[in-house]
Amino acid sequence: MPRYKLTIEYDGAPFVGWQRQAEGRSVQGRLEAAIAAFAGESVTIGGAGRTDAGVHALGQVAHVDLGKDWPSDTVRDATNAHLRPDPIAVVAAEQVGDDFDARFSASARHYLYRIVNRRAPLAIEAGRAWQVGTPLDADAMHAGAQALVGHHDFTTFRSAQCQAASPNKTLDRLDVMRTADEIAVRASARSFLHNQVRSMVGSLVQVGLGKWTPGDMKAALDAAERSRCGPVAPATGLYLVKVDY
Amino acid sequence: MPRYKLTIEYDGAPFVGWQRQAEGRSVQGRLEAAIAAFAGESVTIGGAGRTDAGVHALGQVAHVDLGKDWPSDTVRDATNAHLRPDPIAVVAAEQVGDDFDARFSASARHYLYRIVNRRAPLAIEAGRAWQVGTPLDADAMHAGAQALVGHHDFTTFRSAQCQAASPNKTLDRLDVMRTADEIAVRASARSFLHNQVRSMVGSLVQVGLGKWTPGDMKAALDAAERSRCGPVAPATGLYLVKVDY
Repeated sequence: MPRYKLTIEYDGAPFVGWQRQAEGRSVQGRLEAAIAAFAGESVTIGGAGRTDAGVHALGQVAHVDLGKDWPSDTVRDATNAHLRPDPIAVVAAEQVGDDFDARFSASARHYLYRIVNRRAPLAIEAGRAWQVGTPLDADAMHAGAQALVGHHDFTTFRSAQCQAASPNKTLDRLDVMRTADEIAVRASARSFLHNQVRSMVGSLVQVGLGKWTPGDMKAALDAAERSRCGPVAPATGLYLVKVDY
Repeated sequence: MPRYKLTIEYDGAPFVGWQRQAEGRSVQGRLEAAIAAFAGESVTIGGAGRTDAGVHALGQVAHVDLGKDWPSDTVRDATNAHLRPDPIAVVAAEQVGDDFDARFSASARHYLYRIVNRRAPLAIEAGRAWQVGTPLDADAMHAGAQALVGHHDFTTFRSAQCQAASPNKTLDRLDVMRTADEIAVRASARSFLHNQVRSMVGSLVQVGLGKWTPGDMKAALDAAERSRCGPVAPATGLYLVKVDY
């Protein structure tokens, strides 16, 4: 049974999230249905990151086992044909070994959070970034972010619903960079807790607004209390950019 | 009567184009209605570029005369409030002199055409770029483009419906650059003929596909015959980026 690695792009807005659920349209569910429609067999796919409702992906990764040895390009093109008109696209498909697991083989996940910092609402980027009307100090945000890099207890920055056994994670990178009116927050780690990126970004925005000092980020982390987190940033600005193996 | 310069962003997809028409929703018409709704007077606005149906803008410019001396930020914010939920945003408003005319004072217009060159359909960028599935040689496209820079008769590259008195224009820049699977074509000139950018891009894609040599661009230009133009590129990839004064 050949296994395929799929690299997937999607606009998260119309979906209940990556994961198949009892009700609502999920990215996983739509992909499984599209693959089943062309391959003529029912399939279950595993994904690298269970993105929440509204979260986008430029490079989500999943694996699927198929009963027949299809050319990789056929898997990509035929799945895409059956995904229409949903905003999901298989950007690449390649055959991989049986030991490849999209979730457990991943060595790093890279997220991008896009903020557009201007008074005017978004026309072109509507639904693809978080518009913040009050001026943000991106340098202060970057300074505050550095306290979170490294191995820590991230209890402050995980959802109360997070099901991970431990709140301890190693954050490899949390960079904040402004280019004109866009502020990009880039976060990399082997894995993240539920809502971790949006919780960190929401807190960093408090720093950007001047309501928190950069040092307040470290204090919030050290407290290891969910109540010390800033307001969680909306899903619309978050992208799963890339997964390393 | 104070005059205001408005810098405007829009997603062209739902509109019949910039210009107000007898039927259909235009960007100009929606802006005039939004300004009238807050200012309590009917207005007519002049725009720098009459973008076609489906063409986007990051920095269209228009001017409007108002009967009252409103703060510029009020003009911006109140217009935006009345534009909802249309994908049009006034990014900036500033008071200018009576001699400022968005169309006739413009010294240069800058357009961007975005091609995504990959097999997979677009999920995130759907409606915001032209997806071309066959590999394109961007270096050959750039080489071919250089024949068009300068002062020429652009009859080959203008719509049969173009109403400009003369087909002679000076093209200041036509650059083609690839970044991963995205190809950006940047065009700058004091002014353009109707459909000129999309006609040039459509022809350059013939070069990128290897159907035309770079030298065929010059031959097509020199022929000064509309029938020598390649298939016109779709509106979805075109952006009016900036207007200089």
